[in-house]
Amino acid sequence: MIRRLAIIGVGLIGGSLALSLRRSGAVEEVIGCGRSAENLERAQALGVIDRGCHDPAEAAAGADLVVICVPLRAMRGVFAALEHAVEPGTVVTDAGSVKGSVVEDARAVFGTPPPWLVPGHPIAGTENSGVEAAFAELYDRRRVILTPTPQNPQDAVERVAAMWRAAGAQVVRMEADHHDEVLAATSHLPHALAYALVDALAGWDDRQEIFEYAAGGFRDFTRIASSDPAMWRDICTANRDHLVAALRRYQQDLGRLTDALAAGDDEQVLRVFENAQEARAGFLRLLEGRS
Amino acid sequence: MIRRLAIIGVGLIGGSLALSLRRSGAVEEVIGCGRSAENLERAQALGVIDRGCHDPAEAAAGADLVVICVPLRAMRGVFAALEHAVEPGTVVTDAGSVKGSVVEDARAVFGTPPPWLVPGHPIAGTENSGVEAAFAELYDRRRVILTPTPQNPQDAVERVAAMWRAAGAQVVRMEADHHDEVLAATSHLPHALAYALVDALAGWDDRQEIFEYAAGGFRDFTRIASSDPAMWRDICTANRDHLVAALRRYQQDLGRLTDALAAGDDEQVLRVFENAQEARAGFLRLLEGRS
Repeated sequence: MIRRLAIIGVGLIGGSLALSLRRSGAVEEVIGCGRSAENLERAQALGVIDRGCHDPAEAAAGADLVVICVPLRAMRGVFAALEHAVEPGTVVTDAGSVKGSVVEDARAVFGTPPPWLVPGHPIAGTENSGVEAAFAELYDRRRVILTPTPQNPQDAVERVAAMWRAAGAQVVRMEADHHDEVLAATSHLPHALAYALVDALAGWDDRQEIFEYAAGGFRDFTRIASSDPAMWRDICTANRDHLVAALRRYQQDLGRLTDALAAGDDEQVLRVFENAQEARAGFLRLLEGRS
Repeated sequence: MIRRLAIIGVGLIGGSLALSLRRSGAVEEVIGCGRSAENLERAQALGVIDRGCHDPAEAAAGADLVVICVPLRAMRGVFAALEHAVEPGTVVTDAGSVKGSVVEDARAVFGTPPPWLVPGHPIAGTENSGVEAAFAELYDRRRVILTPTPQNPQDAVERVAAMWRAAGAQVVRMEADHHDEVLAATSHLPHALAYALVDALAGWDDRQEIFEYAAGGFRDFTRIASSDPAMWRDICTANRDHLVAALRRYQQDLGRLTDALAAGDDEQVLRVFENAQEARAGFLRLLEGRS
């Protein structure tokens, strides 16, 4: 049981965490911290938080657990605000989509990452942002990846893991750099591709007709291009090296497919499509096996 | 009212058309034509067709309207089978995703495309195939593009348009080549990108983990990569020139985004993402305005 939980940044991610922990009776009191008084009032009205404040240090005071759910670009500022405010026994985690940059931010502020900071990343989200988009089921059967530092005592990691399990998630551990490599492929690359496609089509002469005659497949394919642009700029630039590598690699694969199509090597086109369909069927079995 | 409708190829597209016309009471009798006796029996059991046969000429005999819903590679064979079977007053249309190749097939078989053949393309579908996947609502508020030939009398075009409107769709007309250019961007390109992505990731060393840590965004983004590979090989090769051009153009745009990211031009990355998000919001407004 978490007596007092502090959520720094009350949007989709932090708000859904609070709602899911309330649902399972795993938390007594939720303090929300954010810059916008209006957003904190909305969060309180929605039953997401019990009270709000603007200062991370104030929110962390007396909390057992602090979860930082701010955009990556705001991480360093929150760390600085927490530096002298984290009390003995308090554990802090974050929900940033890139873990190498979070550890770098911690190094920049603290020198050595503090033992009480356990980096983490819930693999969940929707294309919507803000506390109004929060819902208690967001983490059900989803993965949360923790990337503990060498400084973390085992029990700090376990307390963060227990919180995410209470929120409905399955917790795994990974090296931060490996996390960033895997997520570059599976999340950051698709987002970049979808943004690039919609941006590209919007620049073509017949864009009006292109969107006019797009159907359900296009809507699904481009859904992630409705995600918050500044947040995704942060994610992509924070994971720059892995994402650039993934993009270059994908471009080579796509170039080969294009060349095969242009050259009339229709067997090769079919092989790529068949292989993809089969791999996606395996992915769906994996998802189903989990739920 | 259609007294007798012949559906050549009873799958998702043809089956859904029959169901939607039955729903609106716009058809009296539906004849299904296909190679598989088992599939025809299933279609009959599901109430999609009244009776089945294996010969397109037999199916077309006495029909007011014939709709060819076979894969593009089978189009020419069906045209050949129909050549001497289409009776005066019968109108034939197709549902092929590429229109230039259909007209080419018609030229190959008939010399000049016959007046009774009105090429068309319903912009609808799911990643599923087969008559079991058919449903009456597939065409509700969807677009159907007709690409009449110079040989088509106005009333033949109007009869096909009336059929699609009775199925719930909105009908527009377009030049065949322009149709293929627009659909290359909006449908064939996204399919190629999704197939290429899943194929690429399946070849990476950590593919097991990549799929393990993929989330909802990835599932949506790659949904179209579950579509029938042979059908999409047909579509992509039938629309080879336009699709190769779209792929090359997209690769340039993606290369520019990658270069910007690699060079640390984060403002440019943000501009692409913002532009895409805004364009997609416009696309969604377009969709909503229609329903």
